[in-house]
Amino acid sequence: MKQPQITIIATGSEITAGRSIDTNSGWIANRLFEEGWKVRNFIALPDNPKTILEELMHLKRKAENDPDNPVLAIMTGGLGSTEDDYTLQTVLDLQNKEKEVVEKARIKLQRFFESRGKSYSDILPAMLRQVYVPSGSYTLDNSAGIAVGFAEEIAPSSFLVCMPGVPSEMKEMFNRRLLPFLKRNYGIENLKQATRWVWSIGESLFQEEFMKNQKDLLSAGMDWGVTAQKGYIKAIFNASDESLLNEVVLRIRNFYKELCTEDVFTEVHESLSLSGKSLAVAESCTGGLLGAKITDIKGSSAYFLGGAITYSNDQKVSLLGVSEDTIAKYGAVSTETCSEMADGLSDRTNADYSLSITGIAGPDGGTDEKPVGLVWIGRKEKGKPSETFRYLFPGNRETIRENAANTALFLLHQILPERKIK
Amino acid sequence: MKQPQITIIATGSEITAGRSIDTNSGWIANRLFEEGWKVRNFIALPDNPKTILEELMHLKRKAENDPDNPVLAIMTGGLGSTEDDYTLQTVLDLQNKEKEVVEKARIKLQRFFESRGKSYSDILPAMLRQVYVPSGSYTLDNSAGIAVGFAEEIAPSSFLVCMPGVPSEMKEMFNRRLLPFLKRNYGIENLKQATRWVWSIGESLFQEEFMKNQKDLLSAGMDWGVTAQKGYIKAIFNASDESLLNEVVLRIRNFYKELCTEDVFTEVHESLSLSGKSLAVAESCTGGLLGAKITDIKGSSAYFLGGAITYSNDQKVSLLGVSEDTIAKYGAVSTETCSEMADGLSDRTNADYSLSITGIAGPDGGTDEKPVGLVWIGRKEKGKPSETFRYLFPGNRETIRENAANTALFLLHQILPERKIK
Repeated sequence: MKQPQITIIATGSEITAGRSIDTNSGWIANRLFEEGWKVRNFIALPDNPKTILEELMHLKRKAENDPDNPVLAIMTGGLGSTEDDYTLQTVLDLQNKEKEVVEKARIKLQRFFESRGKSYSDILPAMLRQVYVPSGSYTLDNSAGIAVGFAEEIAPSSFLVCMPGVPSEMKEMFNRRLLPFLKRNYGIENLKQATRWVWSIGESLFQEEFMKNQKDLLSAGMDWGVTAQKGYIKAIFNASDESLLNEVVLRIRNFYKELCTEDVFTEVHESLSLSGKSLAVAESCTGGLLGAKITDIKGSSAYFLGGAITYSNDQKVSLLGVSEDTIAKYGAVSTETCSEMADGLSDRTNADYSLSITGIAGPDGGTDEKPVGLVWIGRKEKGKPSETFRYLFPGNRETIRENAANTALFLLHQILPERKIK
Repeated sequence: MKQPQITIIATGSEITAGRSIDTNSGWIANRLFEEGWKVRNFIALPDNPKTILEELMHLKRKAENDPDNPVLAIMTGGLGSTEDDYTLQTVLDLQNKEKEVVEKARIKLQRFFESRGKSYSDILPAMLRQVYVPSGSYTLDNSAGIAVGFAEEIAPSSFLVCMPGVPSEMKEMFNRRLLPFLKRNYGIENLKQATRWVWSIGESLFQEEFMKNQKDLLSAGMDWGVTAQKGYIKAIFNASDESLLNEVVLRIRNFYKELCTEDVFTEVHESLSLSGKSLAVAESCTGGLLGAKITDIKGSSAYFLGGAITYSNDQKVSLLGVSEDTIAKYGAVSTETCSEMADGLSDRTNADYSLSITGIAGPDGGTDEKPVGLVWIGRKEKGKPSETFRYLFPGNRETIRENAANTALFLLHQILPERKIK
């Protein structure tokens, strides 16, 4: 089948005014990449029917004039019930069509109103607009909300897809409804994917020291991408031939050893959930960020006890029992203080695993001997002596703090029992 | 002067593959909005010279065919030294021009190399590419890096502006070099702006109950936008006539009273920094998020002591001295527990201000009586009894936690002395 030139369109004046960031387009591009399609471009447009129609006309003409290169335009937003939701009307103008009601969705809307003790006649006309599509469209049900999505053929084999801008509704609709439609129309062999994380390394070094030596796999049909995270990089490999992926995973593991992991955050969560072991944290320069990351995952209450935010030296002494002498002699950012933080935390919480962080996040407070970015991370398993690890993280305050919190979880990951049955 | 149709273009395959989010375009749109220009659309393109040239040709033809509506295209990325940086070559092709060196920038690059003990001849050709522009371009100096930006006239009064994709370099270049150029070519009266935050309210209610009654100001030339944050909305008003802004600020204050604030996070920081008072936090469902937000601001060590993350009930008892009976009788999410958390924190840290948070972030753990989203926030000023506030926050786990942490700072803001001399 002919592969489409894919354009992703986000509508919303809040985006083009810079008041809000469009995350839908990136999510869609990523999902398409996972399924083996590459995106040609993104477009973001204000809630202005004239501008939107102009862009859609341009895409339609392009598709009509060049039938060998079908166009797939995936648009989000503008399907809601407020006066600046223009998508349906614009597509009707583009296609010179009438609208038609999607009866299943209309009944859902009616039941929703009735369940709130209101009658059907209370439904505002604007509200009702959400259950209409251009007549003859391929409809995309919304299992997470009201507004119905749809796909319109704008030229032979070329489609304009419209979905709501609410991320939870769009994602459900994409996975459950749109993807099967795309596979039917532009189906390609199913790509397989492997992802590995590599810690304490940047994108360019990874390219230089590892990817340069994978030319054989690349020329055999493997595709790859790398994305810099805070404290690690995420390397993604795509291929239809699974043996290429097995080979690259073997090589990356042999090359980076314990620095190469799978998703550390998920595996830490799974391991602690399964083993019934508990975790506590003592944070200085991260000020709560590590705890916030851990508790960001639902179900973390099964193992996370809590801990202490000891931003000031006094609190290191009073909340964790770090000795005043230690701080005076070695400083708050030192292996000694870091170690006593982990020990004190372990004593006070009785946690199976205790993590401590103390460092200089900047932009002020650095010296020649202890520069901005210097961070000590402590790790203690109950009943064993604590260990500390010294890092010098690059970047600004935010980057240093993110690096420190992520790396602490990496260090915990290293000593956890096998995460799951593989 | 004729106002341009503004298109912002981001280049980078990491963007169109969904591996990285383009924040430059939003930043530029926001700055342009502040200066009184509105953006027509955003485009994101992969590092593919053919695709980039196609888009630029399309814009150039549009500008040529419709001289009454000049085009301003502002493009970021692709000016670096790696093999996927195609911007310069693409613009040369578009304009049918030769490149020329920017001598000032070349010397800067040479000095940079010499300062690192390398000779000029070590500079790779790819490196050198960064100091070239199309001949006759209007150049935009880079005070934060090497790559030079430029503006090319693609049709009468229509310009294509190219800037580096590194945010720090782009922002410097935009403010210091591009803005004066734009004002000269498309100068408009300077708009004034006012921003107010309104707490515990959504965008649509704000529109319904407040903005609907501002039609007189809108028809007199005021422009506005609103963006939903977690726990509050941010309302932005633009006008060239400052008296319109004074009037709307007066009205919004009278309408929302103490729920209407300026930037709470900055004001809390300023107030505590100036007054020398200290702050501590005790967090349950937010797990460290409040501490992380506070310490996200540089200089927060001047007043932030730290505190306790008491995710489990045991830690509420052992770290904060909450009574076991209280938790057994009223539950961990109750005004009683919340109040004892704030009191215990205050006793242990001796902070001037203590904040406590306990709630149900979900998705599990809710009951009819205590549903997901129920959060108690405690506030204590040293020497005074603690107060607690009950909230029922909408949304998912992440939203509930963000709401809770932001609202705690709002509650602190309410009792702080005047932030600054106005």
